[in-house]
Amino acid sequence: MSDPTKQTHRDSKKNPSLNELIRQMTLDEKIAQLVQLAVPFYEGAEGDGLITGPMASLGITEETVHNSGSVLGMAGAAETINVQRTHLENNRLGIPLLMMADIVHGFKTIFPVPLAIGCSWDPELAEKSAEIAAKEASVSGVHVTYAPMVDLVRDPRWGRVVESTGEDPYLNSVFARAFVRGFQGTDLANDTDRVAACVKHFAAYGAAEAGRDYNTVDLSERQMHEFYLPAYKAALDEGCEMVMTAFNTVDGVPATGNSKLMRKLLREEWGFDGILISDWGAVKELIAHGIAADEKEAALKAIKAGVDIEMMTSCYVKNLSELIENKEVNESLIDEAVMRILTLKQKLGLFENPYRAADPEREREIVFCDEHRTSARELAVKSCVLLKNEGVLPLNGNSDRKIALIGPFARSGDVLGPWSWTGSKEDAIKLDDGMRKKLSGSSELLVADGCGIETTTMEQWQEALASAQSADTIVLALGEHSDMSGEAGCRADIRLPEVQLELIRKIKSLGKPVVVVLFNGRPLDLHGVYDEADAILEAWYPGSEAGDAVADLLFGDANPSGRLTMSFPYSVGQVPVYYNAYNTGRPQGAPDAQVRYVSQYLDIPNEPFLPFGFGLSYSSFEYEGAKLSSDVITMEESIKVSVTITNKGNLAGEETVQLYVRDITGEVVRPVKELKDFRKVALQPGESREIEFTLDEKQLRYYHSDLSHDSDAGAFVAFVGPNSKTNAELPFKLVK
Amino acid sequence: MSDPTKQTHRDSKKNPSLNELIRQMTLDEKIAQLVQLAVPFYEGAEGDGLITGPMASLGITEETVHNSGSVLGMAGAAETINVQRTHLENNRLGIPLLMMADIVHGFKTIFPVPLAIGCSWDPELAEKSAEIAAKEASVSGVHVTYAPMVDLVRDPRWGRVVESTGEDPYLNSVFARAFVRGFQGTDLANDTDRVAACVKHFAAYGAAEAGRDYNTVDLSERQMHEFYLPAYKAALDEGCEMVMTAFNTVDGVPATGNSKLMRKLLREEWGFDGILISDWGAVKELIAHGIAADEKEAALKAIKAGVDIEMMTSCYVKNLSELIENKEVNESLIDEAVMRILTLKQKLGLFENPYRAADPEREREIVFCDEHRTSARELAVKSCVLLKNEGVLPLNGNSDRKIALIGPFARSGDVLGPWSWTGSKEDAIKLDDGMRKKLSGSSELLVADGCGIETTTMEQWQEALASAQSADTIVLALGEHSDMSGEAGCRADIRLPEVQLELIRKIKSLGKPVVVVLFNGRPLDLHGVYDEADAILEAWYPGSEAGDAVADLLFGDANPSGRLTMSFPYSVGQVPVYYNAYNTGRPQGAPDAQVRYVSQYLDIPNEPFLPFGFGLSYSSFEYEGAKLSSDVITMEESIKVSVTITNKGNLAGEETVQLYVRDITGEVVRPVKELKDFRKVALQPGESREIEFTLDEKQLRYYHSDLSHDSDAGAFVAFVGPNSKTNAELPFKLVK
Repeated sequence: MSDPTKQTHRDSKKNPSLNELIRQMTLDEKIAQLVQLAVPFYEGAEGDGLITGPMASLGITEETVHNSGSVLGMAGAAETINVQRTHLENNRLGIPLLMMADIVHGFKTIFPVPLAIGCSWDPELAEKSAEIAAKEASVSGVHVTYAPMVDLVRDPRWGRVVESTGEDPYLNSVFARAFVRGFQGTDLANDTDRVAACVKHFAAYGAAEAGRDYNTVDLSERQMHEFYLPAYKAALDEGCEMVMTAFNTVDGVPATGNSKLMRKLLREEWGFDGILISDWGAVKELIAHGIAADEKEAALKAIKAGVDIEMMTSCYVKNLSELIENKEVNESLIDEAVMRILTLKQKLGLFENPYRAADPEREREIVFCDEHRTSARELAVKSCVLLKNEGVLPLNGNSDRKIALIGPFARSGDVLGPWSWTGSKEDAIKLDDGMRKKLSGSSELLVADGCGIETTTMEQWQEALASAQSADTIVLALGEHSDMSGEAGCRADIRLPEVQLELIRKIKSLGKPVVVVLFNGRPLDLHGVYDEADAILEAWYPGSEAGDAVADLLFGDANPSGRLTMSFPYSVGQVPVYYNAYNTGRPQGAPDAQVRYVSQYLDIPNEPFLPFGFGLSYSSFEYEGAKLSSDVITMEESIKVSVTITNKGNLAGEETVQLYVRDITGEVVRPVKELKDFRKVALQPGESREIEFTLDEKQLRYYHSDLSHDSDAGAFVAFVGPNSKTNAELPFKLVK
Repeated sequence: MSDPTKQTHRDSKKNPSLNELIRQMTLDEKIAQLVQLAVPFYEGAEGDGLITGPMASLGITEETVHNSGSVLGMAGAAETINVQRTHLENNRLGIPLLMMADIVHGFKTIFPVPLAIGCSWDPELAEKSAEIAAKEASVSGVHVTYAPMVDLVRDPRWGRVVESTGEDPYLNSVFARAFVRGFQGTDLANDTDRVAACVKHFAAYGAAEAGRDYNTVDLSERQMHEFYLPAYKAALDEGCEMVMTAFNTVDGVPATGNSKLMRKLLREEWGFDGILISDWGAVKELIAHGIAADEKEAALKAIKAGVDIEMMTSCYVKNLSELIENKEVNESLIDEAVMRILTLKQKLGLFENPYRAADPEREREIVFCDEHRTSARELAVKSCVLLKNEGVLPLNGNSDRKIALIGPFARSGDVLGPWSWTGSKEDAIKLDDGMRKKLSGSSELLVADGCGIETTTMEQWQEALASAQSADTIVLALGEHSDMSGEAGCRADIRLPEVQLELIRKIKSLGKPVVVVLFNGRPLDLHGVYDEADAILEAWYPGSEAGDAVADLLFGDANPSGRLTMSFPYSVGQVPVYYNAYNTGRPQGAPDAQVRYVSQYLDIPNEPFLPFGFGLSYSSFEYEGAKLSSDVITMEESIKVSVTITNKGNLAGEETVQLYVRDITGEVVRPVKELKDFRKVALQPGESREIEFTLDEKQLRYYHSDLSHDSDAGAFVAFVGPNSKTNAELPFKLVK
């Protein structure tokens, strides 16, 4: 997994001038560096006057705020400059504040939600999105973003699946690296258009039991290494400066107080020497979890685990002095944490220029500029996934016919998705506006809500039915409001709300072509949608340029190319369901399988409704001549997997060619398929191209029962095709 | 957990005469002892002539069958005697066959399913049921039963929850011991009315992912020790002779080939020296699992893991010789396995009397005798759980009114539940027959099906509505057919089938009192049932005496006393849900909890619909004066928890008083509640009794992160009450 040449942290030299600075600091000043508070605590912040309130409730002093090391959730050049200036005036040693914020999928120019970005299978555009987010954030005074979130996800009930790129450890790792490169660039000190990245949530937050946020995670250590850890590691191998703890337990111990996870694995084994920050309030939450009796014990466990910054609670500031005095904590732990914090400040050039790129004038130029919005539109186009199309799409904008656009997302600005606090729904392109631009001649767009997300009125029904009745084609814009996913946005029922299913039934009964566009933050159970619609476009939350991007696809100015990165379950009773599962001892469909005594449900299939990697196009792509250059891989010799793809349709389009491998026999059970590589290929109508992948021994390694990462000689199968369900088998052997 | 004085296996002496016998055996004869085949392979079995077919498909010879050590699924005195006689004629050394069978909850006299037995909270009656099952099985020639199944269960989608006593490790352990005592007695050699028990399925089979049978299990080792292993260990501490492997993986390795689990934990750490048998076909299934390339490797991994008997496949017989020849397996492993098998034969007295208790004449006397059926009725009465009662129950049988009994279980014999192959549905008391016996005067019972389990006809609807319209009270007998649970009986939708919900709605609309009696094998989502019914009795599958037992309860000849041992989820989107969960760092309902950012769903509660321990009575019981004898436990001093219970109702009844404890702070996270003890108390109307529990340091021990089993000094809370939701807190401290 790990590439030793990329371990930038392990060998980073401590700066002698920072050592000198630490020597000058009092213990209280050092401890205050470990405190992170939100905007209202700071003098110079907008809406000041709040300072005394929250301070009192946390039991901290003005002195601590003046000496604190970082601030959370601040953005805007004028305000950040003001806060930094005031801070430096009050800070004895003139140590600048680190400004951190959740800039997850764009700053003002909002890109699609990460789950959608995953569906682009386009790490270059993902990197570009992070670069633009960094540029807008940096000029607004932000130094660190709490991103990327790379938690592997398998349960669509969990609201935060919207923040992940999906269920595959390899694909998540590819995106983890892309996001880190995009945020950080290669030279944080000199490239002030970049910000430091903070990978989260370490570790395995995505495995919350029963899909309920913050709930217990329980996994074998091996399963964690095999599936959950690779993407965090990939981010760190790419040089990610910071790590955030997860809210969940890992093997019975909350991550934020978990020495085995943080001190041993992250710091010692992986050599991570950057800042480890708790998630919001997570240090104090060790008490609720029940591994700390009080704030003192919470502070003790967190600092011992290696948590440098305590976000939003005051266990450190109130207890570390006493813990040091009582010799329960060695002051060297504090010095190490302070050194990491000061080192990042130095890397960002804050000692030389504490305001860094913050610049109100340049902010006005750069933020939400046309160039950025064009990128956002491009990525949104690539992120939508065409789930069904019975010849209805693309629509024709100059056919002189009437299109009815109906549904709660017809003219909604709630298309940015969770974690877009710096964006503006008002500035987002609404779907009706996007679609209207595509019409010419006497073509007409009739727009009606039909219902809200969860409720409706008789007037809304009537208006919708009237529009639908007079239209030739109906586009239903449906989905979840953005609070129905994201943090703490968990649903036990993953269907569209009943009122929207009712709207589909009513509209369907008119017997006209129905296109459904979905805006949502999780894989849905599509019962009541799939059979009723003639076409379905999964738009997720496409971001600022939503309306234009979706209209591009609906009217064929762009050809859908997104592919699902998380399985759509048949129903919630099937979760967790994911493509890279194990075979079991009694697989369904084996040649000698019994009728009853196989691993299955009586009432639904084992297969998800829509598999990982799935997505349609307005073109159709033919796969021919899949072959291997040899059926033997050795330690020295790789093989080539090749296949010829032909665009058999009438439109130019992009196909995502996917390479999967199955290890037939292992020392432990192995997934029925694992994504090993993929290639996006753009083809004109009738054009053919041969795609070639290289497969080598390294790609066949996995975590054994002793956690060694190695390959086993033996039989394998390669699969190359358009999604994870492809069954064209190419057997080969690894000889060692 | 473990009591060293109970480790009967560790120090069992090898018998010198058996050593001598093994010395006389050829390698082929020894290997054949490890083979277990089903009835059709055996000469002398009914329906013979099948012998050549299955032998050919397995690739084994007649010689192997003649030398095999045990047979599966045979019962009936005449047949077992015949098969044993023929076997001894063909076996060179005259080694008798072990006759094994799944006698799970009764032989001919079928007791309630184990999930129902759990709800009795009555280990004495459970023990009695196993004793009776053993007696009937033994006289029919069975020597070993594949029971008890003690897999801890949390997911009602899994069909085999019906075979478990539920979600609590302590309660499951209590029942595990009771069943083992009941089956085995204390002297297998002389008490030939007993059979050897085989605890299953080792280990953690109940944690099948997504509730799909045979699916992957992934748990941390600590979680497995804390929740899943205690009941197996309890069975072994009680002297259980055999262990069966589970179909699932444990930490990536299928149990049947898992040396760490079997050789290291079961054999070395726990000192188990009895027979370890694979589940049906599980040795060969190591190939499908993908940890063995072929049958030879499957045999190698299973024998190394310590599996003595291979059930129903021929990996051992076809490959062990060669593996020994090639020095991949040491012959001593075979000798050990043979010794374990011969030792059990000797313990059962089979060398002296290979027919043991098999006796056709006594079989006719004992099997399904009145005494046994009375016990089955008693346990069935104790196993039903009253879930709701708005003053409708009990019914009055001499009120000269009409009762309509409607539903697919009104006159169904499908009341035995899964694993009752030796029982007879025809002999089971149907509900209508049971209810009719309770009527006198001009009271009348109108009976109609209304529908089948999943379908109906117009005639059935009409008949049911006509009956309902002319009745004063309606009893709906609804549920799942018994194939909808049990092995491979998994459902993604855990509601009653739609046609039965429709029947409820139709009947409810008549506005008459409606009582629902449920026959089913799992906790159900009761939407569409609970609000519609005036009373609900959960009858599970009550066994042979179903109709009489349920009628006893419906008409008040018995007072319901069962308590749920598995949570009824709010909906399938909530699973897994169980009472002994962890608090998380952001629990719902904490004093300082935010509105959104707590661990919860947006659309349903966190709490199950009906909690563990819940059940109603026709009486009501008041809890008063709950107190501790001291608020400090020390290593030497236990405390008493006492409470006074009063029957405030007009009927005699039984209350199940439950003691829970919460460990406020641990080295790892601790459950919000853990059952520590319980007491059933029978009270006349108006009667009061003080119940006293003892709590000591041992009961506060748990598995730490290093798997040490110990207690921590600190704060605890005791709860005493009628179910797991009780909130009467009694704080105490452990001082060490």
